[in-house]
Amino acid sequence: MKYLSILGSTGSIGTQTLEIVRQFPNEFKVVGLTSNKNSDLLLKQIKEFKPKAVAIMDSSKKDDLLNFSNCQVYSGMEGLKKIAALDEADTVVNSLVGSVGIEPTYHAIKHKKNIALANKETLVAAGSVIIDEVKRNNINLMPIDSEHSAIFQCLNGENINEAKKITITCSGGPFKNYAKEQLEKVTLQDALKHPTWSMGPKITIDSATLMNKGFEVIEAHWLYGIDYEKIKVVIHPQSIVHSLVEFQDNSVIAQLGLPDMKIPIQYSLFYPKRFTSNSEPLDLAKIKLLEFREPNFEMFPCLKYAYEAGRIGGTLPAVINAANEIAVYTFLESKIRFLDIPKIIRKMMDGHKLIKNPSLNDILDIDRKTKEETKRIIEEEITVRN
Amino acid sequence: MKYLSILGSTGSIGTQTLEIVRQFPNEFKVVGLTSNKNSDLLLKQIKEFKPKAVAIMDSSKKDDLLNFSNCQVYSGMEGLKKIAALDEADTVVNSLVGSVGIEPTYHAIKHKKNIALANKETLVAAGSVIIDEVKRNNINLMPIDSEHSAIFQCLNGENINEAKKITITCSGGPFKNYAKEQLEKVTLQDALKHPTWSMGPKITIDSATLMNKGFEVIEAHWLYGIDYEKIKVVIHPQSIVHSLVEFQDNSVIAQLGLPDMKIPIQYSLFYPKRFTSNSEPLDLAKIKLLEFREPNFEMFPCLKYAYEAGRIGGTLPAVINAANEIAVYTFLESKIRFLDIPKIIRKMMDGHKLIKNPSLNDILDIDRKTKEETKRIIEEEITVRN
Repeated sequence: MKYLSILGSTGSIGTQTLEIVRQFPNEFKVVGLTSNKNSDLLLKQIKEFKPKAVAIMDSSKKDDLLNFSNCQVYSGMEGLKKIAALDEADTVVNSLVGSVGIEPTYHAIKHKKNIALANKETLVAAGSVIIDEVKRNNINLMPIDSEHSAIFQCLNGENINEAKKITITCSGGPFKNYAKEQLEKVTLQDALKHPTWSMGPKITIDSATLMNKGFEVIEAHWLYGIDYEKIKVVIHPQSIVHSLVEFQDNSVIAQLGLPDMKIPIQYSLFYPKRFTSNSEPLDLAKIKLLEFREPNFEMFPCLKYAYEAGRIGGTLPAVINAANEIAVYTFLESKIRFLDIPKIIRKMMDGHKLIKNPSLNDILDIDRKTKEETKRIIEEEITVRN
Repeated sequence: MKYLSILGSTGSIGTQTLEIVRQFPNEFKVVGLTSNKNSDLLLKQIKEFKPKAVAIMDSSKKDDLLNFSNCQVYSGMEGLKKIAALDEADTVVNSLVGSVGIEPTYHAIKHKKNIALANKETLVAAGSVIIDEVKRNNINLMPIDSEHSAIFQCLNGENINEAKKITITCSGGPFKNYAKEQLEKVTLQDALKHPTWSMGPKITIDSATLMNKGFEVIEAHWLYGIDYEKIKVVIHPQSIVHSLVEFQDNSVIAQLGLPDMKIPIQYSLFYPKRFTSNSEPLDLAKIKLLEFREPNFEMFPCLKYAYEAGRIGGTLPAVINAANEIAVYTFLESKIRFLDIPKIIRKMMDGHKLIKNPSLNDILDIDRKTKEETKRIIEEEITVRN
């Protein structure tokens, strides 16, 4: 039996993780849960899963949760860190969204918890620091991303040093066939309509800009210790092939499945075993067609920026992550246009003074400052426009 | 370093195996070679690779090879068996065509040689006997077929018992889009034009009838100990995905690559390591499209017959193998029509008295008798027609 703390249990990955827990009551026990501000759903989850402790990021909602004598209630970042380091937990599922996930991941690793990581921003912004701690504490870091779960499965039993190339597939998002003029006019509603995956709003927008794919490139670099020139992205609109590994002998191993996050979540929880899934099995004869093409780096500059930030390293990935986070949330409030997102990120990259080998505190500091600065720049821009 | 005996060294797989040996002189030493009757090429191979011993099936050609004092020369089936059991060999590459491969494989296993097996007829006709000996002698049996090599690679590090389904891909051959009326009129030349793979003539015809795929289903059953209902065939005209394994959690692992036998041959020789290949790497964005559809069992009954023979078991697979072998060679002599092949096989299946648990001798006996009987039936038929 595994003892789970689930950070972000009321979000898309969090609720799907709990579905799996529900399906396998003899395999998992939930000991910790956290939510950003959805105290209603968190309450229901407390009743159902009876965790030892929970945390809510939004302290004003803490009182809603104080009805259970057997469940400790925390709030804020300190609360998240408490849940990430619970004595009773052996595995922390981090399904937080954004750079808020960095500190709890770090803290959980320090406390020798195995990590199932959906919060890719952790590795994007703080990859070197996190991977160092993973090695130092000899814990398992399992990716929940469908692409990285695919790569992990493709490498199963194989030597990463015999891999010549990793190819991360990308649906291309809702705008893959758009012309530049069309991209200028897309609305929030358009951007939220992902063609193949059902996900939370932030990652859905990241998928429309291809920043999500750029983050996955950086994540792959850290997870698999592989150089950027060996990481390729290919557009694959059907989202059936989740990623591929090419070996020295030109043999390519791929992982496939219908686009359903339950498969990678379950894999990360059960690894190294596999259990029956209630997801739908893949029938290639029904799918009929798998398409592949090169990504367009000019139309989707976020992907290019991510490669650039990854290659330069230091604090630059933390900058694009922070700038992107603010830009996307402002876009989600319909305050800026779709194509403003890459422009804002570029501006923040260009203005950044790089720290080559940052500590965790440097990264958290840059994250905070970049977010403030991005907000300021956006406000200015909006004022000028109006 | 591995010490190789290559049975069928002058054929398609044999010559490609020697190309790999040439590429890695520090990894392999050729100690034995055999050919059916191509003494000219075998002579050249003796000069280049300096084996300890060779054999030629056609005894009348033996004298052509007696010029080398350091190379023992054998002939006939006894000669093949000598080469298969050479003291100096640790690995036997069996790239013979047809049921002639059964006895040398068996003999090699008895002498504790690891086997790299391209001769699928061995497992089709004598699967139970061969697999028993593999287990008893604790040797490695590595498939050279691209499809089984794919499955092997997909299972790498995974438990076959967690596999829910194996899907063997099939190019569909040159007639995949033909109507029944068109199939009635196809010529030998049409049948020899395989759209994706370059192979010897017998397997090329087997690919046009889909009997090759049927044999691979039976081969998979024996290689992986998996029930027939868990083995599927899917038509995939591009021959890029070589096969797939679906696990309990609905995650599917596939092996891909350009259609080049050097990849599976090399994998079988180097396993568990991988080395650089001079084959062309796969570029999915260049391939653009992968198609999949259900096979048509009515248009290509050989596939259906193979499943039937596999499920019934006993000596029936040896019967379809033997009948097919004679029918195909007669078709290669332009003496019968394409659609006569399945008809002849059906006739031999229907007339067969099954032995449930045959010994190797039973199988060899049935193989010989079925071949004779098939020849007789074909002669009769041709006489009636003329």
